[in-house]
Amino acid sequence: MTTSTPPVTLDDVRDAAVRLKGVAHRTPVLRSRALDARVGAETFLKCENFQRVGAFKFRGAYHAASRLSPGQLARGIAAYSSGNHAQAVALAARELGTTAVIVMPEDAPASKRAATEGYGAEIVTYDRYTGDRVALTEALAADRGLTVIPPYEHPHVIAGQGTAALELLEEVGELDALIVPVGGGGLIAGSASVAKGLRPGIRVIGVEPESGDDTKRSLEAGRRVSIPVPHTIADGQALHTPGELTFSLNRRLVDAVTLVSDDEIRAAMRFAFERLKIVVEPSGATPLAALLCGHVERLPRRVGVIVSGGNVDADRFARLCAGAD
Amino acid sequence: MTTSTPPVTLDDVRDAAVRLKGVAHRTPVLRSRALDARVGAETFLKCENFQRVGAFKFRGAYHAASRLSPGQLARGIAAYSSGNHAQAVALAARELGTTAVIVMPEDAPASKRAATEGYGAEIVTYDRYTGDRVALTEALAADRGLTVIPPYEHPHVIAGQGTAALELLEEVGELDALIVPVGGGGLIAGSASVAKGLRPGIRVIGVEPESGDDTKRSLEAGRRVSIPVPHTIADGQALHTPGELTFSLNRRLVDAVTLVSDDEIRAAMRFAFERLKIVVEPSGATPLAALLCGHVERLPRRVGVIVSGGNVDADRFARLCAGAD
Repeated sequence: MTTSTPPVTLDDVRDAAVRLKGVAHRTPVLRSRALDARVGAETFLKCENFQRVGAFKFRGAYHAASRLSPGQLARGIAAYSSGNHAQAVALAARELGTTAVIVMPEDAPASKRAATEGYGAEIVTYDRYTGDRVALTEALAADRGLTVIPPYEHPHVIAGQGTAALELLEEVGELDALIVPVGGGGLIAGSASVAKGLRPGIRVIGVEPESGDDTKRSLEAGRRVSIPVPHTIADGQALHTPGELTFSLNRRLVDAVTLVSDDEIRAAMRFAFERLKIVVEPSGATPLAALLCGHVERLPRRVGVIVSGGNVDADRFARLCAGAD
Repeated sequence: MTTSTPPVTLDDVRDAAVRLKGVAHRTPVLRSRALDARVGAETFLKCENFQRVGAFKFRGAYHAASRLSPGQLARGIAAYSSGNHAQAVALAARELGTTAVIVMPEDAPASKRAATEGYGAEIVTYDRYTGDRVALTEALAADRGLTVIPPYEHPHVIAGQGTAALELLEEVGELDALIVPVGGGGLIAGSASVAKGLRPGIRVIGVEPESGDDTKRSLEAGRRVSIPVPHTIADGQALHTPGELTFSLNRRLVDAVTLVSDDEIRAAMRFAFERLKIVVEPSGATPLAALLCGHVERLPRRVGVIVSGGNVDADRFARLCAGAD
């Protein structure tokens, strides 16, 4: 890259939105008087828990796959993930008429395997204690001519993830702040690219679990730092270091990162269930937790929130609410 | 009544919709590819779990209260309920600038009391084993000059409940069938008045819990029959006989009533949680249970469903999923 044009721009996200039209759901924006009264602001919840595969991940995976050449696409795509990205890549492959190979640890939950296989993907397993999933995936990809769709380190993935924020801002107009969960950083990088492009004065605030504060620390240090692998219920955010590409965007675009505890996340999931009547997975509930616990400083009048996903099964939800997980 | 005009018509529901505009939420209609694939029809879920107070009941209560004279309204309104109708009447009173007295059993769940008091209502309790809540409410009303808002036996209540189906049919166009939970019969009477008025060929199908089949039996007998007070997790449908007014409408407008077991309701609540990402209370899940279990005969192509409410707290949901409630 020799110019100062950022690797993902508002126009890139708009292009992604065109490709996703009619394929990804245009998810609803929920309002709640109970939430507004509790936090003292008008909140607009962009509900990606209602997205296909139950999370925003489908946007980025499909967009990236749709940009491959016909030859690449015909040979198939691959990913390593035991989470929402696995299902997203599997469904993207099916929608584009090709095949997907997903590399998962052999002890991945049966429900995740079944969901991914349900979209027609081939599962290849590895031993999480002895195997190197990246090396395994790359070897498989080289051997079979597959293209790997990364979970966040790619401009097309990031642009796809940004389409949720684009829809939100198009629908509700002016927002003073946008609050977004931070895992590898793809969702917030895409969201911030849109938000700052449309409205330079908007504050973009990330939320991480307390023990998974790699992006907060990295932003404070001005460089990517690594932390021990976090133990948190927010499995979508249990990363030890930010992505290189996502961090290069987020250090320019993100105004602050705030932290929430696992108990605060549990309370937010319960609030979403009992008051909003929606199912939100732990990572998806982190912005709501930050709002409900007053962790967002200088909270402005109109606040957008990306509710990133809803993939938690009923039994785990019950254990989480009981504090047993 | 000396003419053959039914006590609730499509025009009555349209009038109610005008009064409810900007006060009740226009709730979203959710689609689900997973559900459509599972049941083999296009399904349109009208999500009254996202309605104010978490259930359709607000529509009827507010509409009925809004039709009172200024003098009646100033003196206040009353209701007997420990369920969603209590909160609906309490909120309707607040919205209309008056007061509500709600008669509840003294052992009603603390969360229901707190929610009702949260809307500013006065709670009067009675002993459910020795007290007569209807007599108590009527004595209170006579003493204080209050107007009682009944849960279903009133044309204005029924017309208000019908506005959910009106919004659904306006939004999605042609439907071949509409599936609606049956408790006292107000929701289905209002829904059927709209549906048959707009599209005479539509099938209107009610769903009751197996042990609470008073409306099904009454329709078969051609007269209102009484059953023992049902034991079912579907607390909104634990009635022993249909309303007189609602039955007079439903015997003309409802094509069939189908039954679901408590376990089928539990499975439908879990499906709603895990696949649709929405929270549905047991009564609200009965149409979904009927669809998922194949209890709807001659299922047509396009099916509307009224998801009537979402008031189940997280702890009860967990117990229900575990089969412990």
